[in-house]
Amino acid sequence: MFTPAKKDMSRPRTIGLLTDFGLSDPYVGQMKAVLNKKAPACPVLDISHGVQPFNVPQAGFFLAASYCHFPKDAVILSVVDPGVGSDRKIVGLQLDERLLIAPDNGLLSLALETSWAKEIHAFDLSQAMVAPKKISHTFHGRDVFSPLTAWLALGGDPKGLGGEIDPSTLVSCAWSRPDVVQGRAIAHVLHTDRFGNCVLNLEAGSLGTPVELNMTSPSIGPLAYVTTYADMPKGAPGLLEGSQGFLEIAVNQRSAAKEFGLSIGDKVTLTWEK
Amino acid sequence: MFTPAKKDMSRPRTIGLLTDFGLSDPYVGQMKAVLNKKAPACPVLDISHGVQPFNVPQAGFFLAASYCHFPKDAVILSVVDPGVGSDRKIVGLQLDERLLIAPDNGLLSLALETSWAKEIHAFDLSQAMVAPKKISHTFHGRDVFSPLTAWLALGGDPKGLGGEIDPSTLVSCAWSRPDVVQGRAIAHVLHTDRFGNCVLNLEAGSLGTPVELNMTSPSIGPLAYVTTYADMPKGAPGLLEGSQGFLEIAVNQRSAAKEFGLSIGDKVTLTWEK
Amino acid sequence: MFTPAKKDMSRPRTIGLLTDFGLSDPYVGQMKAVLNKKAPACPVLDISHGVQPFNVPQAGFFLAASYCHFPKDAVILSVVDPGVGSDRKIVGLQLDERLLIAPDNGLLSLALETSWAKEIHAFDLSQAMVAPKKISHTFHGRDVFSPLTAWLALGGDPKGLGGEIDPSTLVSCAWSRPDVVQGRAIAHVLHTDRFGNCVLNLEAGSLGTPVELNMTSPSIGPLAYVTTYADMPKGAPGLLEGSQGFLEIAVNQRSAAKEFGLSIGDKVTLTWEK
Repeated sequence: MFTPAKKDMSRPRTIGLLTDFGLSDPYVGQMKAVLNKKAPACPVLDISHGVQPFNVPQAGFFLAASYCHFPKDAVILSVVDPGVGSDRKIVGLQLDERLLIAPDNGLLSLALETSWAKEIHAFDLSQAMVAPKKISHTFHGRDVFSPLTAWLALGGDPKGLGGEIDPSTLVSCAWSRPDVVQGRAIAHVLHTDRFGNCVLNLEAGSLGTPVELNMTSPSIGPLAYVTTYADMPKGAPGLLEGSQGFLEIAVNQRSAAKEFGLSIGDKVTLTWEK
Repeated sequence: MFTPAKKDMSRPRTIGLLTDFGLSDPYVGQMKAVLNKKAPACPVLDISHGVQPFNVPQAGFFLAASYCHFPKDAVILSVVDPGVGSDRKIVGLQLDERLLIAPDNGLLSLALETSWAKEIHAFDLSQAMVAPKKISHTFHGRDVFSPLTAWLALGGDPKGLGGEIDPSTLVSCAWSRPDVVQGRAIAHVLHTDRFGNCVLNLEAGSLGTPVELNMTSPSIGPLAYVTTYADMPKGAPGLLEGSQGFLEIAVNQRSAAKEFGLSIGDKVTLTWEK
Repeated sequence: MFTPAKKDMSRPRTIGLLTDFGLSDPYVGQMKAVLNKKAPACPVLDISHGVQPFNVPQAGFFLAASYCHFPKDAVILSVVDPGVGSDRKIVGLQLDERLLIAPDNGLLSLALETSWAKEIHAFDLSQAMVAPKKISHTFHGRDVFSPLTAWLALGGDPKGLGGEIDPSTLVSCAWSRPDVVQGRAIAHVLHTDRFGNCVLNLEAGSLGTPVELNMTSPSIGPLAYVTTYADMPKGAPGLLEGSQGFLEIAVNQRSAAKEFGLSIGDKVTLTWEK
């Protein structure tokens, strides 16, 4: 499909997958079949396929929280793509040696904003649209992104598909930067997990160690600032420095989402002592 | 378990899996454990385990839409098996080099009806029931189909288990052939996906390019005939040449299933100008 | 991370995974990323991630029913860990060559109670908590259990992490032993599966072949004692020697859970002729 790879192809790179396709439909299976056909030696790992349909900010959080746990040279493909069939770009973001592939719709921006990478490069990979013989108009995840990802995982050079672009020109996601001033933060719920923890678009540590912390909208009242569930007063909510690198509204062994009626996309306001 | 394989066993074949077992129960995990024990070098890929319990036509669609994306010599095991414990046969269908394994209950018929394969063979593999030492009466997916599939993936010859049969003698599925005459089609909803698209048992292209297309039962009215979501009038339904090789009732970024109250198994009638 | 392994490391061991994390959150993906980074040659198979949050007895059943289908030297990691962040131990249970890893909260006890292993050893592996550089307080599955499991799968010696303990000192799970006397059993529903079968904490065969069997609480009435669905009178319930090694309340092609209102954790009483 693509021009010959220049990189050493002897070591197969691990591929990560993130989509909003769910696991009941055969879509993820078809993507994996294509990856297996084209790059049989590359392990393929799922981050999640449970992103809400078309929810780009949630997918951005899953990616930002997960890519750093993959092997250093992993290629991670994220497909949440409401603009499939339009002229949206396909882009790559290289954070040190890891390479993140996605439609250019803001999916990569939280990973970019929160990255500690020393070397950051971005690539326009839209030429991948030209190569495949048979593309469905509705399933680029299988027909465009998967062959592209297999080719990159086998050592293909992203520069060979169009050239480097300025990372700051990537489409930015609404909630990749929270609104924080001294003593007040307006944030959004990026995700509520299976246990009811509500992840905010606030990096762990980004508020310092707030005291007399309150959630004022929706009005929940005082929050303990904690690093473990065990440190929360029983049944009372806390703002948790969670395992995902972001702050979470949580209640020990209960569902914060249910207790406080919080859903993905909700806006919350926190205040604390200056 | 079986007689020695005759084929070159140096290249492990990819195994595909399709069941109605879901992913919450440990059943799929146990099948994969058996496959890993018996054929550790063969990659195992899931098509889906989200088929509705006992829904053979839906499974048939998942299989027909997916097998062609697998490597050319893949072995694909489908287990939706309401007749487990009865005397239903176990059969194999070879489409060129790919080999599809299933209980003989109609699961293979849509793949057979829509196949472009040059070489088609069918096998009665029911002798696989005889070999295993310990078979549960209720979980042949793990105790019969998985060892059989591992053996075939390692190069076992399906003829060694009983011999070839006429593909036309395989049990036929109710909806593998739609009722189409010039200007009118009576079809069934094989599947509604996560996004609410309703897949019909009508192959893409099988109606030509219909004009003045209507869905008359249930009465939805005019449908645009399109190949991308972007070509649909905003908010209006279309008949989409989808990515799965079949026609789909769809609404751009909305759920056709919800809008029109369509469910798996529903009968629909389409009419168009002759 | 750990001391050098003593065992032959040339053959990668298969790793099994069992959690209550679900597949929508990115947690399982992050665990697999760590396993892939540290033990890239070891296949990783899911038993299930659909255990109810914090439901240790259900996880114990999934494990007891599944580990024996894995390769003989598999390492199986189970993480259902309501006590994460407390001082609960991390333990290993060796059943012949298979090694089961879990928090010491009763998760291993049904596997231990029902095991046919000739050699049984237990290990306190809590020292694994000391080694990792960066541990979240809330996600030991990724930061402690996964590196530990990778190390063991690569041949690490569990004795190197603290030494052997008496298997009988492992925390015991409430329902790992049912209350059975001649003619009467008080049992619990460990799991209701996708098809509505209700698995009891009664090993297949443990009641002999009961006649005039009744379920008296909740009052369901006579149960046929069967080994296949086909042997049940149509529409009538049976006590099934299921594929999981335990007895199940079942109705042929219908949901016993729905018909009789049975849920996980429910207590049931069976009586039969002495």
